[in-house]
Amino acid sequence: MTNIAFIGVGNMGGPMARNLLKANHQVTAFDLSDTVLAPVLKAGAAKAASANEAVNGADVVITMLPAGQHVRSVYLDNGVLSAAKKGALLIDSSTIDVDSARAVHSAAEKAGFLFLDAPVSGGTGGAEAGTLTFMCGGSNAAFEQAKPILEKMGKKIAHAGGPGAGQAAKICNNMMLGISMIGTCEALALGEKLGLEAQALFDIMSTSSGQSWSLTTYCPVPGPVPTAPSNRDYTGGFATALMLKDLKLAQTAAQSVGANTPLGAEAAQLYSLFAALGNAGMDFSGIIRMLQGKA
Amino acid sequence: MTNIAFIGVGNMGGPMARNLLKANHQVTAFDLSDTVLAPVLKAGAAKAASANEAVNGADVVITMLPAGQHVRSVYLDNGVLSAAKKGALLIDSSTIDVDSARAVHSAAEKAGFLFLDAPVSGGTGGAEAGTLTFMCGGSNAAFEQAKPILEKMGKKIAHAGGPGAGQAAKICNNMMLGISMIGTCEALALGEKLGLEAQALFDIMSTSSGQSWSLTTYCPVPGPVPTAPSNRDYTGGFATALMLKDLKLAQTAAQSVGANTPLGAEAAQLYSLFAALGNAGMDFSGIIRMLQGKA
Amino acid sequence: MTNIAFIGVGNMGGPMARNLLKANHQVTAFDLSDTVLAPVLKAGAAKAASANEAVNGADVVITMLPAGQHVRSVYLDNGVLSAAKKGALLIDSSTIDVDSARAVHSAAEKAGFLFLDAPVSGGTGGAEAGTLTFMCGGSNAAFEQAKPILEKMGKKIAHAGGPGAGQAAKICNNMMLGISMIGTCEALALGEKLGLEAQALFDIMSTSSGQSWSLTTYCPVPGPVPTAPSNRDYTGGFATALMLKDLKLAQTAAQSVGANTPLGAEAAQLYSLFAALGNAGMDFSGIIRMLQGKA
Amino acid sequence: MTNIAFIGVGNMGGPMARNLLKANHQVTAFDLSDTVLAPVLKAGAAKAASANEAVNGADVVITMLPAGQHVRSVYLDNGVLSAAKKGALLIDSSTIDVDSARAVHSAAEKAGFLFLDAPVSGGTGGAEAGTLTFMCGGSNAAFEQAKPILEKMGKKIAHAGGPGAGQAAKICNNMMLGISMIGTCEALALGEKLGLEAQALFDIMSTSSGQSWSLTTYCPVPGPVPTAPSNRDYTGGFATALMLKDLKLAQTAAQSVGANTPLGAEAAQLYSLFAALGNAGMDFSGIIRMLQGKA
Repeated sequence: MTNIAFIGVGNMGGPMARNLLKANHQVTAFDLSDTVLAPVLKAGAAKAASANEAVNGADVVITMLPAGQHVRSVYLDNGVLSAAKKGALLIDSSTIDVDSARAVHSAAEKAGFLFLDAPVSGGTGGAEAGTLTFMCGGSNAAFEQAKPILEKMGKKIAHAGGPGAGQAAKICNNMMLGISMIGTCEALALGEKLGLEAQALFDIMSTSSGQSWSLTTYCPVPGPVPTAPSNRDYTGGFATALMLKDLKLAQTAAQSVGANTPLGAEAAQLYSLFAALGNAGMDFSGIIRMLQGKA
Repeated sequence: MTNIAFIGVGNMGGPMARNLLKANHQVTAFDLSDTVLAPVLKAGAAKAASANEAVNGADVVITMLPAGQHVRSVYLDNGVLSAAKKGALLIDSSTIDVDSARAVHSAAEKAGFLFLDAPVSGGTGGAEAGTLTFMCGGSNAAFEQAKPILEKMGKKIAHAGGPGAGQAAKICNNMMLGISMIGTCEALALGEKLGLEAQALFDIMSTSSGQSWSLTTYCPVPGPVPTAPSNRDYTGGFATALMLKDLKLAQTAAQSVGANTPLGAEAAQLYSLFAALGNAGMDFSGIIRMLQGKA
Repeated sequence: MTNIAFIGVGNMGGPMARNLLKANHQVTAFDLSDTVLAPVLKAGAAKAASANEAVNGADVVITMLPAGQHVRSVYLDNGVLSAAKKGALLIDSSTIDVDSARAVHSAAEKAGFLFLDAPVSGGTGGAEAGTLTFMCGGSNAAFEQAKPILEKMGKKIAHAGGPGAGQAAKICNNMMLGISMIGTCEALALGEKLGLEAQALFDIMSTSSGQSWSLTTYCPVPGPVPTAPSNRDYTGGFATALMLKDLKLAQTAAQSVGANTPLGAEAAQLYSLFAALGNAGMDFSGIIRMLQGKA
Repeated sequence: MTNIAFIGVGNMGGPMARNLLKANHQVTAFDLSDTVLAPVLKAGAAKAASANEAVNGADVVITMLPAGQHVRSVYLDNGVLSAAKKGALLIDSSTIDVDSARAVHSAAEKAGFLFLDAPVSGGTGGAEAGTLTFMCGGSNAAFEQAKPILEKMGKKIAHAGGPGAGQAAKICNNMMLGISMIGTCEALALGEKLGLEAQALFDIMSTSSGQSWSLTTYCPVPGPVPTAPSNRDYTGGFATALMLKDLKLAQTAAQSVGANTPLGAEAAQLYSLFAALGNAGMDFSGIIRMLQGKA
């Protein structure tokens, strides 16, 4: 049994913390919102009055926060790095900018801690089911130590590389996801206008060079993939606002290192437009409706 | 044994005709170039002095030509539709614009012929090996009659729908391919700049939501997929000029039916730029070099 | 007094023909629609039952038609080139694709006629007021002969170059217009979100390097330029559908000659999306509303 | 005579400081580089060993620094805001992100100072000649007090609005400039491929709706505008790297406030690609060479 501090127990962090409790870990939770804290406390977590109080005596610290500024704020400036006990393992599962991840890595290392950036994919469904994918950046030591903990919350635990590599891998993957989803939507919408049946085009593309996860696992038109959000009016999947957040992080990173990402930039613009037209909460595959002139 | 007229025996048509000969069909070939005719004649084909002479008495006519104007010209205006014998099956395997395909379909139907548009994917390698994919548009009768012939040249024979549906399916598929290849290149190039190992990023993306055929079968950086053109300096695959041709056909079709294809349009522009910078003959996955500032 | 045949007297051709009548020219008009013919006949034109009848005996033939296929159809294939009298001057003021313009030029030259492609800008307002701009392609002889006639309908008569140059100049100009309008909209919308007053930003940009006709003559936010359509809810200017038509012609031409036009392609996509969302009839500067999330 | 501290006397700051000296102001200069300090000292400036030493006793402080982080660093954290004398007027002429400008504004206000963000346009030529344009953000009081000083360095001093408005106006203007330059290049390159003479197309567009500053003052093909960098092989104007910097600032600002800027994003990508291909130092109008396949 490990003593774990969990900071940030919202839509994602909440079910993740509960999976740790189910695995008989001891969890001390902190969140600014009592509403999201409640189900975690009910599931057996102890309540902390602050992030620093939560980490007091913890063997492992896990953070799940909205953006880089929150992660910097929690760890730095007399935060967790000052309050955590010597030898504690620190894991940040937030999806944040690479520069912030590296800044906290660097400070953690100076302070003598093992630190892992470990953003996830799989959405709230994966968080509940304990089937998340973790993309991890940090030393082998940090990764090996974190792995058994992360396996309580996820199905696939990948070591992407050194400090920041988890964040880097996630934004590269999700940038491609944003692009391939729009591309798939364009192909299906064009095919429809040209008189093709969606199922016939799906059958061809899914076994040809136009195949992608966006098509074969998450098909943006109803029918071919029954579990896809397109079959439930684009609800309950990966919200457009979250896809847009990741695409913006990718653009920020690309700017920062001087990478050329023309389709990534365009995908970010298209999701931004789709969100601005009132669809921020819709599943990101719903962008096909804008392309069809229906949004 | 069927008597087949084959019109257009270049890079693609040549090996396709030879596969029909290998299957013991009788082939009469016509091409404007004696150079490309020679290997087909050597393999056993009879030589015709014109397209109309080639189709004289043929049970099946197959055309493999560069663009819609050539296909219109060969079939219409006292062409093949006048010269072919009653009951001949007509198959156009060229990759051309949907409007031209439908115009020839319509004229063929009026003239009492079964006609199939049946563009292929698989490249010259697939043409040689007889492993092409055929995407077919036309009636069930035309498709069923053509299928055993096409199976001598291809591995997968798909019926996409009615007249023009083969061309439509091909450009939808290849538009998506053009997009997903650039997206994959962007993700890998960004990852590299962020310090990720290509293999590590490949391992994550190929099993996550960023997966696509472009990554897992045709990885644009050397290493992860040994058979991909990236491992042989981007030679011998699908030339940029051909990808650009298909992306332009997709844009023409999208214009014609009023479909919105922002990433398809952008992909066409990027391949056009890559070709203009002197890379028209390079495999299309080589566009990663332009994105990396190396083209 | 010149005997003029006018073929196509709709929104643009109608007022143009009436201006010729006002200048005491004799006009014989043809149109498929009696509705649009009526006001021209009332203004003094003679009615013809067909295009060929209209040009019978005419000194000058002017055509104003929707697209290249109509222009080809009217002039070629036993059309105007067969029916017009020897020495007649032929002027096509339609906005069409460069290839069609050149095909008709070539056929007209073979048939011994002077031909001028002479598309216009200035909209229905300019057509009514006789203040159109004509962009002309053809020989000096054709241009000089046409000029006094065109001056009855326009204020500026420019000789862009040889056959097709009028169409080429128009699509280059209008492609830039489509781009600069969206760019101006983006700058003003971004400025607004950043807290700038529209008038203050207008004052700076209109006297700086961000200046363009789109800003200083046609400002897409209400206020700074009182005559702009933005002050009347984006009505009564240059319809989005017409801008989209010109941007598509530019893309077709760019494809045809292998030119790289990334922003032109993107502008076409954005206007296509704006039209698909129900705004085809709105003035093209109204695209700012889509960018602001209000369309 | 006013006692002015000038921090950052490089390519832009150097000639600006010398113009203040010419106007008989007393200038104390600081820069990390002795090389750039030398000509300013030679022109009569006093040398300071640090930024804080420079501002000691100054009536006016002017900063001209590369990026937001430098401006934050110089003013905040026991910097200029601690060292400047009560009542000193603070002017930042750097081109930086809006958020940093507002952060320094806010801190300056709390510390009791009048502060003005006042980025410039006009390049090194304008800095030498004293003909810069200043785009100012801040209170009326700050603007009125700064104006007579700025007039020694510039020809046009515009008050864009409150804190950050100078930076906001500049990036809006320059985003539009980046877009209109590429659009102009596309139109001219397309026209050339279609057979138009550059001068003929210039004559038409410069008096039509395709007009913009990029065309009429800075024409990207040699000939029509003799003073433009295109006539001297794209040297000596506004470097691609600087245009790219401004376009990235615009994208950062757009992300931050949720504005949609599809062409601005695309322009940033195209300049990024042009720079990556080895042209970071070339005048930004040289991007026409990439579009022509010559870069």
